[in-house]
Amino acid sequence: MISRDDVEAARARTGSRVLRTPVLRRDDGLWLKLEQLQHTGSFKARGAFNRVLAAVEGGGLPEAGVIAASGGNAGLAYAYAARELGARAEVFVPETAPAVKVARLRALGASVRQVGREYAEAYEAATKRAADSGALFGHPYDQPEVCAGQGTLALELEEQTGGVDTVLVSVGGGGLMAGIAAALEGRSRVIAVEPERCPSLNAALAAGRPVDAPVSGVAADSLGARRVGEIPYAVARRTDVESLLVSDDDVIAARRALWQDHHIVVEHGTAAAYAALLTGAYTPSDDERVAVICCGANTDPADLA
Amino acid sequence: MISRDDVEAARARTGSRVLRTPVLRRDDGLWLKLEQLQHTGSFKARGAFNRVLAAVEGGGLPEAGVIAASGGNAGLAYAYAARELGARAEVFVPETAPAVKVARLRALGASVRQVGREYAEAYEAATKRAADSGALFGHPYDQPEVCAGQGTLALELEEQTGGVDTVLVSVGGGGLMAGIAAALEGRSRVIAVEPERCPSLNAALAAGRPVDAPVSGVAADSLGARRVGEIPYAVARRTDVESLLVSDDDVIAARRALWQDHHIVVEHGTAAAYAALLTGAYTPSDDERVAVICCGANTDPADLA
Ligand SMILES: Cc1ncc(COP(=O)(O)O)c(C=O)c1O
Ligand SMILES: Cc1ncc(COP(=O)(O)O)c(C=O)c1O
Repeated sequence: MISRDDVEAARARTGSRVLRTPVLRRDDGLWLKLEQLQHTGSFKARGAFNRVLAAVEGGGLPEAGVIAASGGNAGLAYAYAARELGARAEVFVPETAPAVKVARLRALGASVRQVGREYAEAYEAATKRAADSGALFGHPYDQPEVCAGQGTLALELEEQTGGVDTVLVSVGGGGLMAGIAAALEGRSRVIAVEPERCPSLNAALAAGRPVDAPVSGVAADSLGARRVGEIPYAVARRTDVESLLVSDDDVIAARRALWQDHHIVVEHGTAAAYAALLTGAYTPSDDERVAVICCGANTDPADLA
Repeated sequence: MISRDDVEAARARTGSRVLRTPVLRRDDGLWLKLEQLQHTGSFKARGAFNRVLAAVEGGGLPEAGVIAASGGNAGLAYAYAARELGARAEVFVPETAPAVKVARLRALGASVRQVGREYAEAYEAATKRAADSGALFGHPYDQPEVCAGQGTLALELEEQTGGVDTVLVSVGGGGLMAGIAAALEGRSRVIAVEPERCPSLNAALAAGRPVDAPVSGVAADSLGARRVGEIPYAVARRTDVESLLVSDDDVIAARRALWQDHHIVVEHGTAAAYAALLTGAYTPSDDERVAVICCGANTDPADLA
């Protein structure tokens, strides 16, 4: 479990390692937090730095450095944080990982290990290797320091906006949602948005515990955690996070609208949160102060032409 | 001629019609003003609103509405401002204007007139038509209200950054540069950057007066004014604006770097200013506070893939 105190500690710890990303206020009052401009193109840099720096504080990083399992934004973030801190990074990805993602991890100085046909196999190999080598394992979402690190963007958001009533955020494994909900507990309502085709939090709330959920669709690369994290689930329950689903078509349309109407390029995972507003799945009241988190830009913009 | 007072008046006049666009502060201290997120995707909305609202204040808009000549960002901006103010807009473009630009103007409610093979012919038809119909002619850069309106972004920048030593800005006809230089006169140095293939300000400063200059290359659609405006030229001289040139290859590389390193999509016209830093054409001193204006995003992002 994490609280606002943990998020404040994360902010003090990560300091200027992460960018204070700007907000845009639209004519209609909607706030967009432009976190896709963060180092490595997503909020994952916040959690990764907090995880690694907490280890540094707690006695120093192991000689073997940092290990992560992710072909996506979490992998990039750990590779970047390790490089900035002068540590080794080893990132496990499935053999099926696209060459461009492997190249990007290598460009950040990470050793890339391609293991197994599915993410689960790469994950297992990574945790085993971390146990063997003594390296620090950096989870994509289910560690307290990771969730607390992601939450630092909510402290910025609060300062930048003067506070909002409602925050809409996309959910994969739930680390970002958990950080925000903990940071803003008792201050703002958090609406968690997932594509119908990767509904890990929605399924967990329905089942009363984290359960496996199907993973497919346009946002699977960023939101496709099979099961929501234990910490995120507990925070969502404690803080009464509301869960909404949107269709893949709505996600695609929302990503296009962000470009065409606002000149903002994000990945499909980010567009889920915005889709909830565009479709009316979430309809704010007239004077409700609402923010949408634009959380990632690791996308090919070619199809926005 | 315009001064900071005119820019302050423009700001009071345009108020919430334009967005206060955010700034991003990089790790190395560089400020990026994200003006490409402005309504219609460029700063031109500022000058267009100021031009049209000044006419409203000065006795009301003519029944015939607003006329502009531009297939680019200025046309979009006048069409948008007119629509928001409930006025008609007529936009003259060459017959060669791409269908997608014509469609965009129409989508904003403008009547589009395709006249002549070159911009100069469309311009002449537009001014003639304005004289005949009594419509308000909105120039893309060479009217005091237009320059003053563009300058409002510099007042925001000053507040958002606490003041900078140097502002790098791309120049076409010079309205944006003039607004910024007038707003920050005696406060910040302004560096005007142009592609070698559309050097209107550079040529004017060399000749001692506005002269025709060649127009070609990747940024011609936004920076391709054949001759810098009289007002911009006079402001540049008065405030000692420094003029730099960059190559088209540097512009292309700078636009790619803004996407790959910062997840910001801009058009080539914007990238010129950033190219001056990347290439070392302008090298700030260690403690110099520098801002780059990201001024437009009306671009096809497909080639950033
Ligand atoms: C862009 C983007 N948005 C949202 C998410 C979901 O974050 P979380 O797994 O913390 O729920 C991710 C995860 O990778 C992401 O990359
Ligand atoms: C994106 C962009 N940048 C810069 C300019 C140059 O502005 P100015 O003509 O005021 O110098 C323009 C003009 O259209 C533009 O659209």
